[in-house]
Amino acid sequence: MIGLDFSSTGEWLRGTGPDSDVVISTRVRLARNIAGFNFANRAERSEHQQVVALAREHVMSCCERQGLLWVDVASLQPLDATLLVERHLISKHLAKGDRPRAAVVHSDESLSIMINEEDHFRMQVIRSGRQTVDAFTEVNRIDDLLGAKLPFAFHKRFGYLTACPTNVGTGIRFSIMLHLPALMMTKEIERVRRAAHDMQLAIRGFYGEGSDALGDIFQISNQTTLGKTEAQLLKEFDEGVMPKVVEYERRARQVLVERRASLLDDRCHRALGILQNARLLKLDEALRLLSHLRLGVQLGRITGVDPQTIDRLLVLVQPAHLQKTLGESLHQAERTEARATLIRQHLS
Amino acid sequence: MIGLDFSSTGEWLRGTGPDSDVVISTRVRLARNIAGFNFANRAERSEHQQVVALAREHVMSCCERQGLLWVDVASLQPLDATLLVERHLISKHLAKGDRPRAAVVHSDESLSIMINEEDHFRMQVIRSGRQTVDAFTEVNRIDDLLGAKLPFAFHKRFGYLTACPTNVGTGIRFSIMLHLPALMMTKEIERVRRAAHDMQLAIRGFYGEGSDALGDIFQISNQTTLGKTEAQLLKEFDEGVMPKVVEYERRARQVLVERRASLLDDRCHRALGILQNARLLKLDEALRLLSHLRLGVQLGRITGVDPQTIDRLLVLVQPAHLQKTLGESLHQAERTEARATLIRQHLS
Repeated sequence: MIGLDFSSTGEWLRGTGPDSDVVISTRVRLARNIAGFNFANRAERSEHQQVVALAREHVMSCCERQGLLWVDVASLQPLDATLLVERHLISKHLAKGDRPRAAVVHSDESLSIMINEEDHFRMQVIRSGRQTVDAFTEVNRIDDLLGAKLPFAFHKRFGYLTACPTNVGTGIRFSIMLHLPALMMTKEIERVRRAAHDMQLAIRGFYGEGSDALGDIFQISNQTTLGKTEAQLLKEFDEGVMPKVVEYERRARQVLVERRASLLDDRCHRALGILQNARLLKLDEALRLLSHLRLGVQLGRITGVDPQTIDRLLVLVQPAHLQKTLGESLHQAERTEARATLIRQHLS
Repeated sequence: MIGLDFSSTGEWLRGTGPDSDVVISTRVRLARNIAGFNFANRAERSEHQQVVALAREHVMSCCERQGLLWVDVASLQPLDATLLVERHLISKHLAKGDRPRAAVVHSDESLSIMINEEDHFRMQVIRSGRQTVDAFTEVNRIDDLLGAKLPFAFHKRFGYLTACPTNVGTGIRFSIMLHLPALMMTKEIERVRRAAHDMQLAIRGFYGEGSDALGDIFQISNQTTLGKTEAQLLKEFDEGVMPKVVEYERRARQVLVERRASLLDDRCHRALGILQNARLLKLDEALRLLSHLRLGVQLGRITGVDPQTIDRLLVLVQPAHLQKTLGESLHQAERTEARATLIRQHLS
């Protein structure tokens, strides 16, 4: 209905990019607002509608890409809206809002533009693995194209103006989705948290704000966007933060292999055994086990399991995806059973 | 060294007897003392030695059975003594004592006689499944044979005299080893505990006194031996207690099959998945999983696993057995790994 293949996953979860043993994906996001309009949280309904209309007129044409889909979020069925959230194409905030709003997504899911979320435009480009420069180049290109059509609110001294002061300036946010099972297993994750804090980075779980690192998947992003150029921020993030965290995790994995091989093998083989046999799997347990399995496969302790299958399952086991896949509305207990069945089918 | 095959298990754990879906084994034990000698706890070392000598002279000859083994418990290596405890052929008390003491065991492990445990003689016959009458007949036969050679302490009014007053009278104790996973899963086990208490039965875990029903295996035995004949006690136990508990468990299993099939299948398939894949297994987890697997196999939810393999593993995963099987002294961490390896080998 939305035009996406929900039984598969987007480009960014293919696990094929550089450093994909640790870096699942890279995302670069820009916040932009149209000059002369109130910010979305201050605007009247009629203004919201005008912003949506302008977006529809210009975004679809200027991006010059095949496969762009216009999604009228306000008219989506709740299940479809949740699907887009689970695929990280739109935010919960956009899905649940009540103002006129929309999203433009590319069918390969490497691009999404939210309209009338916190800002008039939230443009994000996602790439699998570590591809910050590439994602940055692409989102800049779209920004230039769109900016040529629509005048963005910009202040000589402050830079791009945004609804929330934390985004003022470049309006840019880099974020990486990381799989850090070894740092979790060795409990060194706290060191990473402290280091992230010192570097003014935000670190949180991937599956929603409340969920603390389900599946050992973390999202790290820059917090300051003011007082530095986009190029500086990119360099800091791509050459400073990212290699450091990747190295921490790889070192922890090496320690597991060299000094705690039994524990490592126990965790990943158990995970496979349970995933292939359980009849009931709650989301948090499924993600934890998929994480251990992913680690085992990445380290070559387990063979015969396709890494892409695991990454695909990380998305497909979520509630709305399960219901979409099975074409029905399921209670939580039924989902628990359906999730186990789906996983068994993929891993048998 | 003792003459038993420790890589296998005794007749009583073959799971072939009647009602073996629930009743693992039946045991009938008699406590006897030689007239004119102090009870073991009051006797001098020289008296202990005389009792051992009399036992050696008469027990081995009178029992008229091929395959009887004389075990000088005091001279056993600690590992071998623990092996006999793990197979329930001798008690911890006998293994750890410091008085002259011995045991006579049959190589098929269906008979064991402890000498200088709490009483001069503790004779027990064990059968797989529900075979109370058969076990009773056999232990009586041995009692008669031995009693014809050695005068047992007997009082006209009280009956057989024993070191502890709880055994005075018939000196008989019936006990059954039960596998009650469904009652555990449905939490109805508490009803059974209360019922056992009301019927003056003792109920405890199988793997030692302290361990509360590891592997969902319970031992139920009569507590009173005074004021009733052996035949009365037998009838009460075999026709009253045993069928009642068996029925409770079977009903609970039926409830699981009819109303909670997903939970049941999840538990037993998960158990198989973990047992076939884990690299580290502590004793309590191994027993819990073997219990769930046993339930799944008994109810036909899992096929392709030999029930006897499971029952054999219930013994073989114990610490001393692991060390004996592997022919070395293992630390706890090594046992955890060796246990997982052994189980994988048996269940692959």
